[in-house]
Amino acid sequence: MTPTISHQALADLVGGQLLQGDPNGAISGINSLAEAQEGEVSFLGNPKYAPLTQTTKATAILVAPDFKDDLPGKALIQVANPTLAFDQAVKYFGPPERPFVPGVHPTAVVAGSAQFDRNKVQVGPHAVIEEDVVIGDGSTIHAGAFIGLGARLGQSCIIHSNAVIKERSVLGNRVVIHSCSVIGTDGFGYQTVDGRHLKIDQVGIVQIDDDVEVGSCTTIDRARFGKTHVGAGTKIDNLVQLGHNVSTGRGCIIVSQTGISGSTQLGDYVVMGGQVGVAGHLKIGNQVTFLAKSGVTKDTPAAGAYTGYPARPLIEGRRMLMYPSRVPELTRRIQDLEKKLAELAEKLV
Amino acid sequence: MTPTISHQALADLVGGQLLQGDPNGAISGINSLAEAQEGEVSFLGNPKYAPLTQTTKATAILVAPDFKDDLPGKALIQVANPTLAFDQAVKYFGPPERPFVPGVHPTAVVAGSAQFDRNKVQVGPHAVIEEDVVIGDGSTIHAGAFIGLGARLGQSCIIHSNAVIKERSVLGNRVVIHSCSVIGTDGFGYQTVDGRHLKIDQVGIVQIDDDVEVGSCTTIDRARFGKTHVGAGTKIDNLVQLGHNVSTGRGCIIVSQTGISGSTQLGDYVVMGGQVGVAGHLKIGNQVTFLAKSGVTKDTPAAGAYTGYPARPLIEGRRMLMYPSRVPELTRRIQDLEKKLAELAEKLV
Amino acid sequence: MTPTISHQALADLVGGQLLQGDPNGAISGINSLAEAQEGEVSFLGNPKYAPLTQTTKATAILVAPDFKDDLPGKALIQVANPTLAFDQAVKYFGPPERPFVPGVHPTAVVAGSAQFDRNKVQVGPHAVIEEDVVIGDGSTIHAGAFIGLGARLGQSCIIHSNAVIKERSVLGNRVVIHSCSVIGTDGFGYQTVDGRHLKIDQVGIVQIDDDVEVGSCTTIDRARFGKTHVGAGTKIDNLVQLGHNVSTGRGCIIVSQTGISGSTQLGDYVVMGGQVGVAGHLKIGNQVTFLAKSGVTKDTPAAGAYTGYPARPLIEGRRMLMYPSRVPELTRRIQDLEKKLAELAEKLV
Repeated sequence: MTPTISHQALADLVGGQLLQGDPNGAISGINSLAEAQEGEVSFLGNPKYAPLTQTTKATAILVAPDFKDDLPGKALIQVANPTLAFDQAVKYFGPPERPFVPGVHPTAVVAGSAQFDRNKVQVGPHAVIEEDVVIGDGSTIHAGAFIGLGARLGQSCIIHSNAVIKERSVLGNRVVIHSCSVIGTDGFGYQTVDGRHLKIDQVGIVQIDDDVEVGSCTTIDRARFGKTHVGAGTKIDNLVQLGHNVSTGRGCIIVSQTGISGSTQLGDYVVMGGQVGVAGHLKIGNQVTFLAKSGVTKDTPAAGAYTGYPARPLIEGRRMLMYPSRVPELTRRIQDLEKKLAELAEKLV
Repeated sequence: MTPTISHQALADLVGGQLLQGDPNGAISGINSLAEAQEGEVSFLGNPKYAPLTQTTKATAILVAPDFKDDLPGKALIQVANPTLAFDQAVKYFGPPERPFVPGVHPTAVVAGSAQFDRNKVQVGPHAVIEEDVVIGDGSTIHAGAFIGLGARLGQSCIIHSNAVIKERSVLGNRVVIHSCSVIGTDGFGYQTVDGRHLKIDQVGIVQIDDDVEVGSCTTIDRARFGKTHVGAGTKIDNLVQLGHNVSTGRGCIIVSQTGISGSTQLGDYVVMGGQVGVAGHLKIGNQVTFLAKSGVTKDTPAAGAYTGYPARPLIEGRRMLMYPSRVPELTRRIQDLEKKLAELAEKLV
Repeated sequence: MTPTISHQALADLVGGQLLQGDPNGAISGINSLAEAQEGEVSFLGNPKYAPLTQTTKATAILVAPDFKDDLPGKALIQVANPTLAFDQAVKYFGPPERPFVPGVHPTAVVAGSAQFDRNKVQVGPHAVIEEDVVIGDGSTIHAGAFIGLGARLGQSCIIHSNAVIKERSVLGNRVVIHSCSVIGTDGFGYQTVDGRHLKIDQVGIVQIDDDVEVGSCTTIDRARFGKTHVGAGTKIDNLVQLGHNVSTGRGCIIVSQTGISGSTQLGDYVVMGGQVGVAGHLKIGNQVTFLAKSGVTKDTPAAGAYTGYPARPLIEGRRMLMYPSRVPELTRRIQDLEKKLAELAEKLV
């Protein structure tokens, strides 16, 4: 049985104002503008999609204060931030959140010295928790996840299925690690002696601060010594690589398939688009943004956006990508000059 | 004991015609042209390797109808498609296929509400199948794989070891998911309010249609709402990222380490080489091919091949990669013009 | 209780000479120059960090023979290779190595036909070892790892948690495979017939020789037939892709997020920076180095460094990255020439 909600109740739920439409009209679902059916509510979060408000079948739309179009027959609900407000509707209509069910599944293998309150932590089937691990209340270790020797997790962490937290890693509160990610694996360090690559011991740790989320199949290497450090509130996508001794500030956003080489330091609120590569031992300042596929080869202290390889400030970097397209025209103009100059020289003979 | 097969029987097996060679000659193995030993059969699938037919030790070679070289002493078998035909020889000499052995391993953890015929589904050691999962006949869930709450798998699916299928994912028939891939993990969506990145609930699903194969360590995020959708017959390689609400058409080929950002839509038979990056919210038309390492920044409706960053039609894109190499010559010609013009101007004074 | 060591004993431990400082001074820890506190020893391995020797709080520093700076108050220990020598101090102060504890955890699932000495091999919780697997003495299969049908591992191998070694893979001695990597998964091969991508059987294997280390979430596909081959002493980072029938020589270094397409052959001591992409069916010579983000499209037989896309010899490749920046200046000079030529032509009328 699908729940329904009236336009007015929906406006109240999302903290908005019903600009037009029947307060008692019924909404029975959520969807994007493109895919919505009659009776559903949608939202205009990205101005790029404004034309869809004219064609959508959605019955109600959440719009920002600057939205002025006339949409006869639609219920319009004005909110400060449609994307965020829509999340309330999503929660209302979406699948129920999975309940937190404390307790240790009988197939989990938990070392005797592991310290956590079995009435306040959820450990799924086949999870493995090694000696001296500490886990805070409210945390969930899902099926098949591995928590290595001496690792410490704060409160309300979620370690998803088949994720691996290696020995001595330190996680703060409300840290989420998605499936098949590996936190605290050896850094990639060798010294080559007589043609043999000798492994350099990696005795440091990974420290991940509060409210960090790490996607699936992402790898964060532990430090050679000291720590690889992910600052509070940083969000990391899938398939990202952080090398040993990397540090990020607070609130960074690192998009999928980006790689950051060893010992590079990011400031606060650094943003990396997808597939960015950053060389090792660099310093990146606060609020620096690298667009997707950038290759970062130098210290970049100044806030702002950068693009290209090697990465340059946005306008310059974009021009660098376009300059080659001017070569044919320049070639033609040079040919023309050569021809005209030769003719002129001939006249003068 | 290695099996053997006569040249004539081999020709029959692969559906070809024995052009030359002793029909009763014996073949005892398969190999590439470069590595074949006497008594083995090989094939010429890629014309690049034609010179190897002169030097290979293979006793028999599968060739296409347009192959006209003289190869004295070799058995030549003409087939319509040597690569495909060779697969029959591979099956004959290769390792036996692993038998499908229905039944649930005693160490697997299967929720009481999971619906499948235990006599027609194979569940390996330490696999975990949560509540309300539905699995079609003939499917195999290998060791350590995880099938989350309410996921639905069709018939004859194969979920390899340690792969993770998250809650509510929907897979069609004959879908193969390789090891350590994560299907249906949260999309990467946040709204930043007062310097905090607030998580946007990702309540949609991943839907994967019939005959899709997904490589190892690949991540496909579930939709914010609605679905991330992989069309029938699409083949996805290792370490690929599909963002939330991405959709692909039928028969797409997505090569390793490619990333497709959220809400981008691919048509049918789209091909992506390795390490391609595609921005979000784009529309890519049917039969569009992006060469390896392309960066796709715009809607690309027209069929054809594209390359470079930003991606352009193939010929133009290749030129863009080469234009910078003409800068030194253009510089010399400009210097020359400047010198000649100055001389000419002097004469006129 | 932290261990301490005297300057002189430390010099002896690392095989160096105490150039200055109190032989009886006490050292109680290790750290980087930037993070060291009083009482700790650090090292100058990368000349880039030489200025830090002036500001570090470290009490003792390992330096190379060419280090001549005056550092009053510091204990200086001269060693041939500070990075390598420091590893001895790291071992002294670092966490204890995890003991090798032979035996099979009761939750592991080991096939009856698997051949290894249960008194000389360590098998962790929930590990799965299939039929006909062979494992050499001194090897460790960590929690949740999977060793497929007929795989053969040499002596002293380490397979980390949740790694997957697929059927028939062959590993030499002292091979290390980190977590969530997948060795021996199907190659990505299809033939398209009437719009359907038919899977080409991948019946070959992966062979990994002695002393190879493979990072986390890395995928190495098995060969179509024959073998995908990683040569002895090669080191592979996280999130790397090696396609089917790739072969590497001895002592190669392949950095994170690099992908090598099918059938490409690397010589010995090939180095690939991060995010390099290599096309298929290429031959790369001994001691070739590709810098990060290179795109390799051609055979590259000659030793040396290469960069860019398409990859070119280092100096030429770097110039290619810079040439576009000269386009604005060339444009101005052409405009200037056009103007002057027009003026000159006018004078002559």
